[in-house]
Amino acid sequence: MFRSEINAGLLKSSVDTVSVLVDECKVRLDEDGLSIKAVDPANVGMVELDIPAGSFESYEADDELLGLNLVRFEDIVGMANKGDTVEMELDEETRKLTIRIDGLRYTLSLIDPDSIHQEPNVPDLDLPGDITVAGAELRRGVKAAGMVSDHMAFGVSGDDETFYMRAEGDTDDVRVDLGEDDVIELETGGENAESLFSLDYLDSMAKAIPKDAAVAVEVGDDYPVKMNFDVAGGDAKVTYLLAPRIENE
Amino acid sequence: MFRSEINAGLLKSSVDTVSVLVDECKVRLDEDGLSIKAVDPANVGMVELDIPAGSFESYEADDELLGLNLVRFEDIVGMANKGDTVEMELDEETRKLTIRIDGLRYTLSLIDPDSIHQEPNVPDLDLPGDITVAGAELRRGVKAAGMVSDHMAFGVSGDDETFYMRAEGDTDDVRVDLGEDDVIELETGGENAESLFSLDYLDSMAKAIPKDAAVAVEVGDDYPVKMNFDVAGGDAKVTYLLAPRIENE
Amino acid sequence: MFRSEINAGLLKSSVDTVSVLVDECKVRLDEDGLSIKAVDPANVGMVELDIPAGSFESYEADDELLGLNLVRFEDIVGMANKGDTVEMELDEETRKLTIRIDGLRYTLSLIDPDSIHQEPNVPDLDLPGDITVAGAELRRGVKAAGMVSDHMAFGVSGDDETFYMRAEGDTDDVRVDLGEDDVIELETGGENAESLFSLDYLDSMAKAIPKDAAVAVEVGDDYPVKMNFDVAGGDAKVTYLLAPRIENE
Repeated sequence: MFRSEINAGLLKSSVDTVSVLVDECKVRLDEDGLSIKAVDPANVGMVELDIPAGSFESYEADDELLGLNLVRFEDIVGMANKGDTVEMELDEETRKLTIRIDGLRYTLSLIDPDSIHQEPNVPDLDLPGDITVAGAELRRGVKAAGMVSDHMAFGVSGDDETFYMRAEGDTDDVRVDLGEDDVIELETGGENAESLFSLDYLDSMAKAIPKDAAVAVEVGDDYPVKMNFDVAGGDAKVTYLLAPRIENE
Repeated sequence: MFRSEINAGLLKSSVDTVSVLVDECKVRLDEDGLSIKAVDPANVGMVELDIPAGSFESYEADDELLGLNLVRFEDIVGMANKGDTVEMELDEETRKLTIRIDGLRYTLSLIDPDSIHQEPNVPDLDLPGDITVAGAELRRGVKAAGMVSDHMAFGVSGDDETFYMRAEGDTDDVRVDLGEDDVIELETGGENAESLFSLDYLDSMAKAIPKDAAVAVEVGDDYPVKMNFDVAGGDAKVTYLLAPRIENE
Repeated sequence: MFRSEINAGLLKSSVDTVSVLVDECKVRLDEDGLSIKAVDPANVGMVELDIPAGSFESYEADDELLGLNLVRFEDIVGMANKGDTVEMELDEETRKLTIRIDGLRYTLSLIDPDSIHQEPNVPDLDLPGDITVAGAELRRGVKAAGMVSDHMAFGVSGDDETFYMRAEGDTDDVRVDLGEDDVIELETGGENAESLFSLDYLDSMAKAIPKDAAVAVEVGDDYPVKMNFDVAGGDAKVTYLLAPRIENE
């Protein structure tokens, strides 16, 4: 059983963070709210999304596991204006999700959850670099890196207490150094640490992070990067985890 | 003889309703005004456009029949700003139309009208469903239907006094139900009636209908749909007629 | 030695006028400022750009000749917002240009200037037609001409004291006549003169000319056209020279 009403803007921004990595996903519903865990087919990027029951305009759910075609779902939600309310209701017999937006009714066939890639376990990491930085700042670094390379590094320097993003191209280089005054929070643990990532993934993730979000970035040395942020002022919570590229492979 | 001045925005919105169906058309001019009747090459969609003499800023015309390249004509009118005045003057000897827009003079060769598809007779129909609905509402239904199918139905239900638009896809369905409170006028004659149409045509037509227009829709059972609306607050009148698709063909 | 700070909007608008003709160019620096002369590979269109030292926010330079990849340079400057300051500094040993924009540092490899097409000498011409006209007016004439042909004429008529732009297509013609009231300045020397130009070039040039610029156009009879204008209210000066097409070739 699942019946809910939610603000269209919140739903759209939340689902965007998942759809940049996968085309279909499992959606878990219970009395606490809606949650999605997904990993891309190459097992490089993970996402965890939580929309607590209290962030819905109305919410009733028993334990349910839905298989969702995200491409189709985003098209439907895209029919709504930002302020609209999206109603969703599960028909348990037909396994179809009825979505209502201001007089429009869309009946969406769900996918068998067993046919969808297994949900990942997002590991707990204890990494030296802990930085909180504006989403817009991350996007800018990632976009600039894309001018010279297809991969880029995130790093912290304990020596001069900075967080940096850098990319080395064949002829040109790009670097953004952010000191304590340029970020919201910065802890390096006095260490130097740097990891290299694919720009394909970082670019997709950066575009789904709201520009005004405070993104908590955890950086290590040849370790995955973890990015935690809120959508719609805290109504939904997202974690990205991206595996590093090892430079000398 | 034909010499006229007309507001560029009115001319552009009017001609757009024709150019979504055909690339060339016959234009009839007489003392009452300008009129166009056209049918697409597959004989599925018809349009009738009337711009009365009084909607022009100035207008003088003897009976004339022009053959117009609409693609070219739209490009020219597209050079004007919305508030500009477009002057048109026919050179009867050379059969060229001189179009003047704020210092720019374009000399357009006309086409031999005999080389253009015959003008259709838009039939009078007496259909059970008579609905007047906002252009924006029609567009929304047509757009939503396009997510699941390449055809859609318009229908009226006499049982619950509604106008509806619906599309059935292989797995998903879309439906918009509009009751008396959601439309401007609604008459079903107590009957149930539904007809199926190609989304190719409906989509083109819906895009040319102004969002704020009150569209008078006439719906029957496996019958053509007729849509009447005004452009520019009544300065031009348009009728679309679209032949139905028969479901069991 | 070269170190400077400049407004991003000024730099971008200036460089755009060069990049519509060439992908790489030589940049001359001396105590007076920055200057570029370039001609396109077909030797048809020339551009001369001067940004005086005083138009920079800060400027220090010995005599230097840089080889610049304009495509790359425009991407970098495109990362800046209009009000941003762009810092440029030459590393004389590595022959790299460091570009800083609000915390972002881009290290751009310069090209060997000897590998770049020789700088043209923009000739002094004494032509009968001297017209000063708004950039927007030129753009409009060029755009309209593109509807009917791939070349167009600029001309002056001493008989009725007008500047005109015209294009003849296979079936349609376009003409813009501008009298003394429609332009900023107009001198025909009482002569009739007309030259024909490729729309490929004129279109690119017209797009790089600011709409609100006062463009001084010099027109002769089967002669190149010269267009002088300021960028950013006089902070940079640009000259275009475009060779004529000879009609009976």
